[in-house]
Amino acid sequence: MAADRLTLDLAAEIARIPLIDPHSHIDPRRPTARTLDDILGYHYYTELAHSAGMDQAPLAPNVPPRDRVRAILGHLDRLDNTVQYSWFLDILRTFLNFHQGNRVSAADCDVLCDRAERIFSQSDWESQVFQKSNLEKIFLTNDFDDPLEGFDTNRYVPCLRTDDLVFHLDKKATRERLAKATGIDAVAEPGANRQELAKAVEVLFAHFVSKGAKACAISLPPDFMPNNDVHPMFNLIVCNCREFKLPFDLMIGVNRRVYRNGVHQGQDLFDQRTSLIQYAELFNTFPDVTFPISVLTSAQNQELVSYSWIFPNVVVNGHWWYSNIPAYITHDLRARLQAVPKTKLLGYYSDAYKLEFVLPKYNMYRRILAQVLADDFVRPGVCGEKQALDLARLLLRENSQRIFGV
Amino acid sequence: MAADRLTLDLAAEIARIPLIDPHSHIDPRRPTARTLDDILGYHYYTELAHSAGMDQAPLAPNVPPRDRVRAILGHLDRLDNTVQYSWFLDILRTFLNFHQGNRVSAADCDVLCDRAERIFSQSDWESQVFQKSNLEKIFLTNDFDDPLEGFDTNRYVPCLRTDDLVFHLDKKATRERLAKATGIDAVAEPGANRQELAKAVEVLFAHFVSKGAKACAISLPPDFMPNNDVHPMFNLIVCNCREFKLPFDLMIGVNRRVYRNGVHQGQDLFDQRTSLIQYAELFNTFPDVTFPISVLTSAQNQELVSYSWIFPNVVVNGHWWYSNIPAYITHDLRARLQAVPKTKLLGYYSDAYKLEFVLPKYNMYRRILAQVLADDFVRPGVCGEKQALDLARLLLRENSQRIFGV
Amino acid sequence: MAADRLTLDLAAEIARIPLIDPHSHIDPRRPTARTLDDILGYHYYTELAHSAGMDQAPLAPNVPPRDRVRAILGHLDRLDNTVQYSWFLDILRTFLNFHQGNRVSAADCDVLCDRAERIFSQSDWESQVFQKSNLEKIFLTNDFDDPLEGFDTNRYVPCLRTDDLVFHLDKKATRERLAKATGIDAVAEPGANRQELAKAVEVLFAHFVSKGAKACAISLPPDFMPNNDVHPMFNLIVCNCREFKLPFDLMIGVNRRVYRNGVHQGQDLFDQRTSLIQYAELFNTFPDVTFPISVLTSAQNQELVSYSWIFPNVVVNGHWWYSNIPAYITHDLRARLQAVPKTKLLGYYSDAYKLEFVLPKYNMYRRILAQVLADDFVRPGVCGEKQALDLARLLLRENSQRIFGV
Repeated sequence: MAADRLTLDLAAEIARIPLIDPHSHIDPRRPTARTLDDILGYHYYTELAHSAGMDQAPLAPNVPPRDRVRAILGHLDRLDNTVQYSWFLDILRTFLNFHQGNRVSAADCDVLCDRAERIFSQSDWESQVFQKSNLEKIFLTNDFDDPLEGFDTNRYVPCLRTDDLVFHLDKKATRERLAKATGIDAVAEPGANRQELAKAVEVLFAHFVSKGAKACAISLPPDFMPNNDVHPMFNLIVCNCREFKLPFDLMIGVNRRVYRNGVHQGQDLFDQRTSLIQYAELFNTFPDVTFPISVLTSAQNQELVSYSWIFPNVVVNGHWWYSNIPAYITHDLRARLQAVPKTKLLGYYSDAYKLEFVLPKYNMYRRILAQVLADDFVRPGVCGEKQALDLARLLLRENSQRIFGV
Repeated sequence: MAADRLTLDLAAEIARIPLIDPHSHIDPRRPTARTLDDILGYHYYTELAHSAGMDQAPLAPNVPPRDRVRAILGHLDRLDNTVQYSWFLDILRTFLNFHQGNRVSAADCDVLCDRAERIFSQSDWESQVFQKSNLEKIFLTNDFDDPLEGFDTNRYVPCLRTDDLVFHLDKKATRERLAKATGIDAVAEPGANRQELAKAVEVLFAHFVSKGAKACAISLPPDFMPNNDVHPMFNLIVCNCREFKLPFDLMIGVNRRVYRNGVHQGQDLFDQRTSLIQYAELFNTFPDVTFPISVLTSAQNQELVSYSWIFPNVVVNGHWWYSNIPAYITHDLRARLQAVPKTKLLGYYSDAYKLEFVLPKYNMYRRILAQVLADDFVRPGVCGEKQALDLARLLLRENSQRIFGV
Repeated sequence: MAADRLTLDLAAEIARIPLIDPHSHIDPRRPTARTLDDILGYHYYTELAHSAGMDQAPLAPNVPPRDRVRAILGHLDRLDNTVQYSWFLDILRTFLNFHQGNRVSAADCDVLCDRAERIFSQSDWESQVFQKSNLEKIFLTNDFDDPLEGFDTNRYVPCLRTDDLVFHLDKKATRERLAKATGIDAVAEPGANRQELAKAVEVLFAHFVSKGAKACAISLPPDFMPNNDVHPMFNLIVCNCREFKLPFDLMIGVNRRVYRNGVHQGQDLFDQRTSLIQYAELFNTFPDVTFPISVLTSAQNQELVSYSWIFPNVVVNGHWWYSNIPAYITHDLRARLQAVPKTKLLGYYSDAYKLEFVLPKYNMYRRILAQVLADDFVRPGVCGEKQALDLARLLLRENSQRIFGV
């Protein structure tokens, strides 16, 4: 909808709240884009262009980046209706001084690539992006054997990603990485016993916490059941979250490699037939562990709203992936704001691979948040503008501060 | 949204329709609150306060009620965004002359408790609540061994709740209650045969109907299949609904004790993976029994809309529990009004434990109904205001009268 | 909502786009209604009237058509809230000069029946309906043994319906029809081998394509898994779609005969527990076959949006059956427009049995499309009016042209 005066006012004030972004895939040693290829190489664009008919030849590693950019730009006219395209336009306008309407094509390739290289290579570019995005801190997603050195962990908050440990410990390479990271050689063997594994995981947690990690995270398939007999490593990790007082982000519902010949990171989809009831025992067993939950569908969001309304240790986390479009965000957000205690809502995260995506994604969210606050809270007299902005501050900043302890 | 002129006009007229509330948990012998503890002791507040961080110590039976109220009030600032909080404010404003803005805290405890005790103890309080709520009749939820005496069954319409019979007949206490209520001693034994049980159930129905019962009801877990071999008692009850011409309210989808350490009545959740297809054989087998159906999710609501559109004996019943928030009511109501014959829509029920909750819950629903009628019917010219109000009257009153025969 | 100026302008322009309707059940040898019974005999009216309390006696074949019309008209006041009723009113107003408000009853029976017979019998009635509906082409649903002769296949585009082959080949009558249609006698036998069947199916495809068929189609139950071992005939058909370059319309999620005593075509319902993950292998195995997918629920629509966003060969097709009401169309359409490349959206189809239904159904859709384009695209500045209309043109016409090759 076109925003009215009240919504615009709220949006303007919301934009002044410094963001704490509780989930991303930023590489803190290379956080910003260096070329336009770093922007359009984001899987949203490669997968949408491919889905709309682009073959994958331009995505091969040996293709000159500028040719890849040209190929993707050349397919954007097939998907310029999407919200992902609007993020790209927002990046072009905010960071690359693009002001020639709402269309961009292969003809713009060289100009934009040149300009991107010039602008992105400024020595203070990282700071500029932080400032323009009003970003204060951003969480990472670190491999378990990440040394966590060479970056400012106050700004780039480490988070222990545990997918490899839970799902790929049967692979020799994973076990060897674990042995190397922990110095416990025994875990390199397939028959490593539980005690040795437990010791290794504890070493990982101690290392991460000592380096400022504030969360643990994992993504889980729709049929996952966190049963100790079946997934002892998952159980070990939860126990360590309890010991080290780390919230455990559960990102529930993704099947990997559904489209086997899809582009890199554009192969995963979901099965809507999943339920948080699968996690009821987990939530019961670990009342001291906070579980920020991300789900992939509006139907799961209705479960999440209810589970978070009932379980003290279940909190709502962002709008993930296939649910991260305005139609679903709006609907899901309204339900969350109407039924979940406001202190339990982690409003949004960018899931970004490059810092430049924090701004357009949060812009989308902030506009929707302003609209929902105007429509459901301020206009019907539920609360005044100031209280609405206090609510926004919880969602964008203060709940992250309190729940993760940053 | 802020209501426009048309919506306000419709809402004002809708508020004049005397309500028949087809489902509640009112104790007709003690229908109103006597203290503020009776209001804030409603599980919506205890579970939300607990979910937001209140420990359960204040909920122990030996805690002085006023201390419990103070504890809950002290946590409301964590959940003052919720619609449940807005119900509480509506009660404070309508019944307790609270007009100090939209915030209430532990500091208000004594003043509000004193005032509540004074106001709630007025000799005509029950009548006042009926009148202010524009309530004419309200259905109860009676245990099968309720003598149904000592109250006006014209105003408080009995309804036979059958959960204990279907799910707890293996318990000695249930069988003994059944034997006592029916005078058929044989059913107290674990090996009671089907004929004896059938006789007992028939005695219960005869008793209930003779006392003015107008419905039978049960709540069912998501995986329930009404198969005669597995659930012969359920089948017996449906047969008696047919014989005694009682509609059978099915409340589909709740799992009990999911959060095992939750507060009283704050332990139940659902599994979205349930379907009305599980009831297809039931609807086919008993075409003469009317089944008012309640569901817990919007996805199930889409099934309910379709099943009610096809099956003559399936009617839509209210907005239940976790679906009873504006975001879901609005979406679900629009679909119902667009696709189900209007004579088959039981618009809303309060599910209240104390009469004071009828007003704020119905207020929420009436506002949404006015908005949907304005947006989807009157403004686009589908019908005029008078016809829209006729439609509202069916949903709030006349369909209950016709379907339940009150 | 009442439409604003922008929405009305967009709607007026959208109405000027000549339609290509990619799915219907029109009989091209008798495409239009001849009596009002042909209109009210549409299963939407018979099933809703029956659901609202009409017994089925008036639907018996020996009942005089006018008596049947009178009976259905006599029940419409129970369902005049539904969108299906609004389609009927639209037909009355547009085609039968009915301008007496929004109510029609049994008292109008004779006048309307007389008028319908007079108007529908005009020699150019078919052309008039095409013109008033702004319809250019409409797809059919042809039995596999349809000779496809005696009609203009340019206007009425043949589509090979394959339900009988996949689900009823165990029936003698089906096998005999197949033998007769293909001249391959061996397939009449229960033990026909795979090669003979493959040959027969190829003959069917060759026949259909030679007659101008542009699609193949099937409706599938919620639990269908397109596994070659279990459904070799389904696999054969997909292989032929690949060879003959025909898109394969999959209409996913319907259970047949759920309400066993329902009216003709008013017996089918669904189980929301289905997922497109069941089709992942199919989409992977046949990258050269385009699959236009129809689903029955908003939850499945969220899957469809995501699968179409990822798989190049999955395209979105219309708003089917129980999802074909404004509340669901609006929500589903917004998500599609925000996340699926615009070239992959087949906006709408009529599913009509008589041409007169194309207009009211598309009118409903066009109004919603105009509103969504106004709210989500033009007003927020995502694009201008001209671009919005280009988008509408893709959904209503050009995507059908390109995807089906018409």
